[in-house]
Amino acid sequence: MPEMIIHTQKTQEMIDITSQVGEAVRRSGVQTGLCLVYVPHATAAIVINENADPNVCQDILDALGRMVPEGAWRHDRVDHNAAAHIKATILGPGETIPVRGGGLRLGTWQSVMLVEFDGPRDRTVIVEVR
Amino acid sequence: MPEMIIHTQKTQEMIDITSQVGEAVRRSGVQTGLCLVYVPHATAAIVINENADPNVCQDILDALGRMVPEGAWRHDRVDHNAAAHIKATILGPGETIPVRGGGLRLGTWQSVMLVEFDGPRDRTVIVEVR
Amino acid sequence: MPEMIIHTQKTQEMIDITSQVGEAVRRSGVQTGLCLVYVPHATAAIVINENADPNVCQDILDALGRMVPEGAWRHDRVDHNAAAHIKATILGPGETIPVRGGGLRLGTWQSVMLVEFDGPRDRTVIVEVR
Repeated sequence: MPEMIIHTQKTQEMIDITSQVGEAVRRSGVQTGLCLVYVPHATAAIVINENADPNVCQDILDALGRMVPEGAWRHDRVDHNAAAHIKATILGPGETIPVRGGGLRLGTWQSVMLVEFDGPRDRTVIVEVR
Repeated sequence: MPEMIIHTQKTQEMIDITSQVGEAVRRSGVQTGLCLVYVPHATAAIVINENADPNVCQDILDALGRMVPEGAWRHDRVDHNAAAHIKATILGPGETIPVRGGGLRLGTWQSVMLVEFDGPRDRTVIVEVR
Repeated sequence: MPEMIIHTQKTQEMIDITSQVGEAVRRSGVQTGLCLVYVPHATAAIVINENADPNVCQDILDALGRMVPEGAWRHDRVDHNAAAHIKATILGPGETIPVRGGGLRLGTWQSVMLVEFDGPRDRTVIVEVR
């Protein structure tokens, strides 16, 4: 099963990785099962939501920015990215998606998104299909 | 593995689907493994928490309503449901539960709940047991 | 697959269980697959984030405390722990981690943490590897 590298460009952004994940599922040969999409990082996350209107992604980043203000935390004395850790913890590093007919069983309005909270960086995305 | 349709009745509500998910696990014949419960929707979610006191469900909806106010977002210009997308992203579209002895290994106070944020609608729930 | 008991000491705390989960994966003999870490509780959660600086854990608890104030909820009339239920629902009872080479495929800065929101209590942690 593959690990892929995604190069993020901004401090915070959401990057649609649905097609790469779908291709990994097809290459696995699994017809029915589970697909885990996972980032081995503490300031990034995986979410599933709408990208047809990319404003949804910006709204999600804005809402998390309201909930978790920058610069107000203990870890900021060590490394100025505590808010990124908190947001990544709330969203979580992975999502598991059903596999049917050899592909992802996503809804019409669902995309798989890598969320960057402390970029730009090179991020690893792991896809495990069972 | 089954897909079931749940008809929601309100704009926002939580519906206990523990018995339907448990029945799907029993029909799968799997004794020990993983059960993914997943909604292919961008304004609904799956959570696991207490339903013995249904006030817990109302409290969860109220808390999310405080964190993510209505009508303050870019996507509201396109479709007036941005808050529903943000809340669904925070909770996530699925939960994975251990299977033991041919059934769900839930705790005493855990129920599996479909969360509707933009109803009433017909919602699909997918159960995949491995 | 094992169930382990973790004795929490404080009302709210995060306890690093990475080594116990890693040992359960090794004992399973699974080389490549999925590892679910799950708590069968409604006022505790599993998260994955940094513990190298333990301030990150305290920041996460503080941030959730700001988002979900104590004592403001319906369920507090029945049992004074509504905020614990709400926070546990937001974080979720489990995380799924890829297994590679017979061990957890975590990132350098990722630890698996049990989150206690209503302690001290004895908490069960279930590890299921497939």
